[in-house]
Parts: sequence; C-alpha cells; structure tokens
Amino acid sequence: MSLTESSAIEVAKTASLASRRLATLSNTARNEALTALHAALLRNRDIILQANARDVEAATRAAASGEISQSVLKRLDLARPGKYEDMLKGVLSVRDLDDPVGKVTLRTLLDDGLVLERVSCPIGVLLIIFEARPEVIANIAALSIKSGNAAILKGGKESTESFVAISKVISDAISETQVPNSSIQLVKTRDAVSSLLAQDSLIDLVIPRGSNDLVRYVKENTKIPVLGHADGLCSAYLHSDADLATAVKVIVDSKTDYPAACNSLETLLVHQDALETILPAVAEALHAKGVTLRCDQQSKSALEKALPAVQQSMLQNSTENDYDTEFLDLVLAVKTIPSTSSPVSCVETAIAHINAHSSKHTDVILTSSRELAELFLNGVDSAGVYWNASTRFADGMRYGFGTEVGISTNKIHTRGPVGLDGLTIYKYLIRGDGHIAGDYFEGPGGRKWKHQSLPLGDSK
Amino acid sequence: MSLTESSAIEVAKTASLASRRLATLSNTARNEALTALHAALLRNRDIILQANARDVEAATRAAASGEISQSVLKRLDLARPGKYEDMLKGVLSVRDLDDPVGKVTLRTLLDDGLVLERVSCPIGVLLIIFEARPEVIANIAALSIKSGNAAILKGGKESTESFVAISKVISDAISETQVPNSSIQLVKTRDAVSSLLAQDSLIDLVIPRGSNDLVRYVKENTKIPVLGHADGLCSAYLHSDADLATAVKVIVDSKTDYPAACNSLETLLVHQDALETILPAVAEALHAKGVTLRCDQQSKSALEKALPAVQQSMLQNSTENDYDTEFLDLVLAVKTIPSTSSPVSCVETAIAHINAHSSKHTDVILTSSRELAELFLNGVDSAGVYWNASTRFADGMRYGFGTEVGISTNKIHTRGPVGLDGLTIYKYLIRGDGHIAGDYFEGPGGRKWKHQSLPLGDSK
Repeated sequence: MSLTESSAIEVAKTASLASRRLATLSNTARNEALTALHAALLRNRDIILQANARDVEAATRAAASGEISQSVLKRLDLARPGKYEDMLKGVLSVRDLDDPVGKVTLRTLLDDGLVLERVSCPIGVLLIIFEARPEVIANIAALSIKSGNAAILKGGKESTESFVAISKVISDAISETQVPNSSIQLVKTRDAVSSLLAQDSLIDLVIPRGSNDLVRYVKENTKIPVLGHADGLCSAYLHSDADLATAVKVIVDSKTDYPAACNSLETLLVHQDALETILPAVAEALHAKGVTLRCDQQSKSALEKALPAVQQSMLQNSTENDYDTEFLDLVLAVKTIPSTSSPVSCVETAIAHINAHSSKHTDVILTSSRELAELFLNGVDSAGVYWNASTRFADGMRYGFGTEVGISTNKIHTRGPVGLDGLTIYKYLIRGDGHIAGDYFEGPGGRKWKHQSLPLGDSK
Repeated sequence: MSLTESSAIEVAKTASLASRRLATLSNTARNEALTALHAALLRNRDIILQANARDVEAATRAAASGEISQSVLKRLDLARPGKYEDMLKGVLSVRDLDDPVGKVTLRTLLDDGLVLERVSCPIGVLLIIFEARPEVIANIAALSIKSGNAAILKGGKESTESFVAISKVISDAISETQVPNSSIQLVKTRDAVSSLLAQDSLIDLVIPRGSNDLVRYVKENTKIPVLGHADGLCSAYLHSDADLATAVKVIVDSKTDYPAACNSLETLLVHQDALETILPAVAEALHAKGVTLRCDQQSKSALEKALPAVQQSMLQNSTENDYDTEFLDLVLAVKTIPSTSSPVSCVETAIAHINAHSSKHTDVILTSSRELAELFLNGVDSAGVYWNASTRFADGMRYGFGTEVGISTNKIHTRGPVGLDGLTIYKYLIRGDGHIAGDYFEGPGGRKWKHQSLPLGDSK
C-alpha cells in the first residue's frame, strides 16, 4: 500500500466516523458551526486574500504563457469586488434554510402501538471534486454541514493556496463547535483522488463538479455512486405557432447568456412551417451576438433566402455529429422537423429526437399551444423540461434552493440542480412494544395489519 | 458482436422506446392494462399450471438427486393451495394503489408567470433479475406497469417453463391495451444478462433479487445503478433495562421466524448487566427453537452458569468473523457490551459496533428507556432502525406498500423495502411566458426572484 493510499484510507475512515457523529447533531448545533464558520471567514479575510493573491500571481504567469485561459484566471480572483462578500453571504443563506434532516415523510400505524416512520437523514460521506473557483469550498462546506454529511474536498490545483488557507480557517472554526473536526477535510494531490475513489465501503457519494473529462474519469473509475453530469446538451423545439418575440428572446438567452455553461442551448429543432416565419428573426438576433449556425439543408436554404447577405457568414452545413455535440461556445446546431397534417406528431418527432440525442439535462418547447406544451413536458425525459422559458433557469439559486452542489442528469436519487434535499436520504423507524412478525397471519388467531396513515410532522 | 449481444441490445432498445410511450400514459390506461393482465392470468390458469407442473417435475428429479433443495422445490409449486389466488390478488392490489406518477412535490412561483414544479415520473427501463418463485414475475410486471417503467425480466432457470407461459399471457394481455408490447420482456439465457448489464445508456436501473452471489456479480459487472442488497446482517442490542418478555419475544421472532430471510437477526449485542438477568431466558427460548449461539467469553461464562446442562450444547465460542457473518441459519453471534457508569455510552458502543459490522439493513434496540431508544434510532445508520419490534417487519407488504421489488441497503435513491415510490424519480417543469435568465441581476433594471411556495396538488 502506497503512502498516498494509506493516507487516503485514513481520510475516508476519519470522515466516516465524523459523519456518524455529525448525523446525530441537532440543527442548532449544525447552524452554530455555520455561524462560527462565517465569523472565521470574516475575521481571516486578509490571510485568505493573501493566499489567493499568490494563486492569482501564479495563474497570471500561466495565463501569460498560455497555459491557462483568461476566464480561469478571472474566476480565481477572490479579491474582485463583491466576491468575498458573496461567499460570506452564501454561508449564512445555507444556514438559514430549513433543516433537511429529521423530516418525517411517511407515518403509518402498522398496528396498535406499532408505528412506522420514514425520516430524512444525511447520506454519510461525500467526496466532492471541483475545479478552480476558490469560493466554492466555503459553499460546499456549508451545504455539507447543514445536511449533516461529512465531506472530503479536492479542489483544482490553480487554487491550491486559497483552498489551504480557507480550509484551515474552516477547520479552526469548527473545532470550537460540536461538529467534529474531520467533517470537512481537504486533500491536495491528484493521486489521493484515485485512492479515495476505491473506498466504496467508506464513501457514499462522489460529486465531481468540473469539466466533462473530470466527470467521465470519475464515472469510469469508481463503484461509488456518482452524482453529476458529464454533458449538458440542451435542446429547444420551435413550433410554428410560437410567439415570435418569445422565441427570439428565449433562444438568444438560452444560447448566449453564458455559452460555456452546461445549461446553455446546443441544438435548435425548428418546425418546417417556422423556417420562413420565425427562424429568420431568431437567426438575425443570434447573428448580432456572434453565433454560428450549423444547419441541415432545409433550414440553411430557408435562411439563405431570408437573411441579408452580410449575415449569411453565420451559416454552416451541419453533420450528424453536430446534433450530439455540446459546443460550449457560440455555435448552435439547427435541424428541421418536417411538417405533417398533425401538430402532435411534429412535437412527438421533436420529443423522440431529444430523448435520443439530448443529455437529459434541460430542454424547452416554444409554442403558444398549452396542449402541445403539456405533451412536450410529459414526453421529454430530462431533469428539466420548460415551456417558453430559457434553459438557463436550470440552476439551484434560480430554483430557490439557496445554492447547489451541482446539476444531476442521473435517472435515480436526484435530478437537476442539487441542493440540500439531494444530499439527504431517509431511514425507516419502527417504535413498538414487543411486536413480532410471527403474530401476523391469515386465519384464526392471526393479527391483522392496520396500515393507517397518520399525520406527518417532526420525528418523535 | 455475438448473436446474444445483438439481441440483448435489441431488447434494451425496444424497452427504451416502450418506456417513453409508457411514461406518457394516464393512470387509467396503466390500470386498464393491469385489469387485462389479471383477467388473462385468471383465464389461462390451466395452461400456466401445466407449464409449472413441468418445472416442478424436473425440480423433483433434481431434488431427488440433491441438485436443488426441498425449499426451492416447495417455492416453485404454483399449484399449492392459495398461491395462484395470491398472485392474482397481488396484481389487483398494485392496480388499486395511488398513482405514483405525476405527483407534484414542489411548486414555486419563481416570478410573475414563471412557475417551477417538481413532478414524479417513471425512471425508464428496469432490468430485474430474480430467482425461483414463479409468481414473482406477475408482481414485478404489475409494479413496473403501475409505475410507468418498462421492465426486462430474467428469472431463475428452475422456473423457465412457468415464466415462459406467464410472460406469454402477460404479452398477449397487454397487446390489447395502450401499454406497449415491449414494456415487459422476458430474457431466458444467462448470457443475455451479461450483455444487458453492458447497456448502461439504455437501461436505467438493475434490481437483482436473489442470492448474495447474484447481487455481488451484478454489482461487479455493470455501470448501471444497482438497487438491492448483497447482505442482510441485522443486529439487536439488548440493554439491561429491557422488559424480559419483550426481549425474549422480539429476539426469538427476529431469529427464528424465517432464518433464511435477509431481515433475520444474525448478531445479538448484550449489555453486560443483562448477561445474568435477561440473556438466560432469551437463550432458553432460542434453545427451544434449535438455535446455536456463538458467544464471546463473557456471555458464554454467564450462560454456562445460568443454563441447565442439557441446554449448554447450544453454546459455542465465537470468532471475530462471526460478527461479520450472515448465517441465514439457526445460528446467532452474541457479543457483550461492557457496562460503564453511563448507559448512554453503552448504547453508543452498540451503535458503533452496528455501524461498523451490520449491512445497513435493519437493526433493533431492546430497552424500556425512550431516551436510549431515540439515541439508537438516531445513531444507527441503517435502512430500518427499530425499538422493541422484530427485524422481520422489514418488508414491503408489512410496511403497507402493497408489495415490493426488493429491499435496498443503498445509501442513495431508496432504502429499505422498495415499492412504487422507489421506482419513480422526478423532473422539474417550468412554464413561462418568454422569461429569460438574463433579466435577473442585482442592481438597477434587474428583476428580482419571488421564490414563493405555491400549494401542491396534481400536475396540469
């Protein structure tokens, strides 16, 4: 066993022990730790910003030699106006959310004196791997403590100095509270990650938050359940009865508000009857934002007729591959949905394309028809399905969850933006009075089940 | 690609397509299919029982030569009194459960005209692998259709003739309904299973229901999420203040009601102060049922003093390994929890043992103290944690879920007995009116989030 491996097991073991203690703490005790964490981050602002400045300095050199991008450099800088305050505010807003632990979601009288309860509880130990942005460590620590989970954190190497400084502040702060010290642990080397991914008996959930490559690497290399998404291939279906202004606004925002985000639009399906009536206005607005369109033949011909010559440079021929590509850039694949006598069958064709090609993240229909919209909302198998609204709403803060640890495209446990709810599971409690299963049987002398729903409320 | 592999992919693809259609059907349409299924099973009773008789005949020969056990043979026989009727009743009781699909569990006004909903929906395609009991196929088909999931089924080879007959009846019955034919498919060969386990882009969840070896094999050989449990290592902690009669009843039932079941007791932790006061009566009652005790030194000495000579043959010395063993037999490991000045710390020692050794299935505390019971219920990290009640209650029927597809010891998605709820997930729907994310920002002109909870109810 290598030194890294043995220390990874040690980290996982102490996290597991800490998680058991953390799971039994009251909401008040967990909140006190978050108050202490907030105070410590406020008090140690200078030390943390000095550490961050060293990261920024190193990254500035790396950016100058082209090793990292300007956008990574920008995300790294905690000294930018408002950023440190947002981090502090984030900790308090998580603290002030409802307690996700101890919620009774089922209460059944099985028999006289025998009550079954389903009560929410923490999952246990989370391994969270994330890139770049240094303030994320404070958000994730806050979410983990609030949900009663221990967390092992590994951040991107560009932010190492910031992470070390912040995690020291976090450790010192929680050591004064009832939350066990090992509840939040930082690991620094990449090697540690692969050793940790092997600890499936100690770690309950991995949340990779970063590039598609990172997520794929994690999924390929662990038996621990992975929560997250490799791809964010979002699609819009533009039906011929859509309101033109709505279509333009929603498509432009979905594509251009933040093209590098996972909830940005990558494929536009256009009803044939909308090619000449709505698509040209959409294309003009996208052109103004610098978007290139990868079009199938039919949509390209329509736009070549409709667009002024100066805008036609935005048009390219699509290949089949484009409809499976997350561009993360100002590029949009366009495909025509053939017109038939039945609008329902057009929507069904769009749904079938999306279910086959999208990544089950977020998809949208643009239509004035409530009936067609409901068909689409019902038929598309994605974490988010929208009617006349931008794909960019797929976000924990925007959904009202306070913050998020990531967006899940899994089909089980939790889908879409993951807040505190997604970090809990439940257990079944039974309180009896010497009840035994052998007493319940058909026929004379056998006891019968009551199976009577009782009012919910807090546990106990 | 082998023939088996290509046909497995075909099965998975048709199941995936069927699942999309099935997901959009109303509860009425799904219920109609279950009514048709019930009628067809009733109508074809003779044909099915003839096929089952052929399985029983082959199994009788195999049992005579010792290839299979008498209990497998017994479980196989659908002609036993009441068994066919139970199967028929099971289909109707699943039909009559509340619709698990389309439940709105969150509704938030994000902004004027912009509403977010979280709505339950089917998971997609289930691969369910089970052994022996032929009636299970009808239960599972009913649960799958009711929850809107397509299912690929593989049963044990001893029941092949029964499965083929039942699945033909199921196929014929649903072909007259709106539920697509490929929603329930039977695969017959073992080879097909390994090919299906590779279809992680088409199959959403695997549910292995059978031996520990089967579950382990499945977990080792797929990237698809697996729901189930390999081990059922249930423990009881007997505190010194427990009511004697309660302790005897609950421990005897937990151990002996059905020793081969996953929810049977395997380890008994005994508070030192109960060794002479309660344990002897428990041991006598267990002796009467033919149980052997694997004891640590302290509990063995106590029982050697307390038990009559004729009962001492039940006592054996335990090894460390016994506390990690699921005996599935009339054997119980016994371990002493040292007495200290604080009862809380004794319970904490028991909790720590259980969290380290049990399989997170179901564990119980025997005590008269509500305070100690709540400490245990809160601290034990298992799917089921009970106070003064038998571990044997861990069962979907007993919990009031109608039936179950299995019991999960996973830490995410679903824990304990899994009924319709565990076969659903949710999606987030947004209905807007051209809303775009770019309109929401801090500062002048930016729109503010309302994030106002709305009353729940059915989705539109």
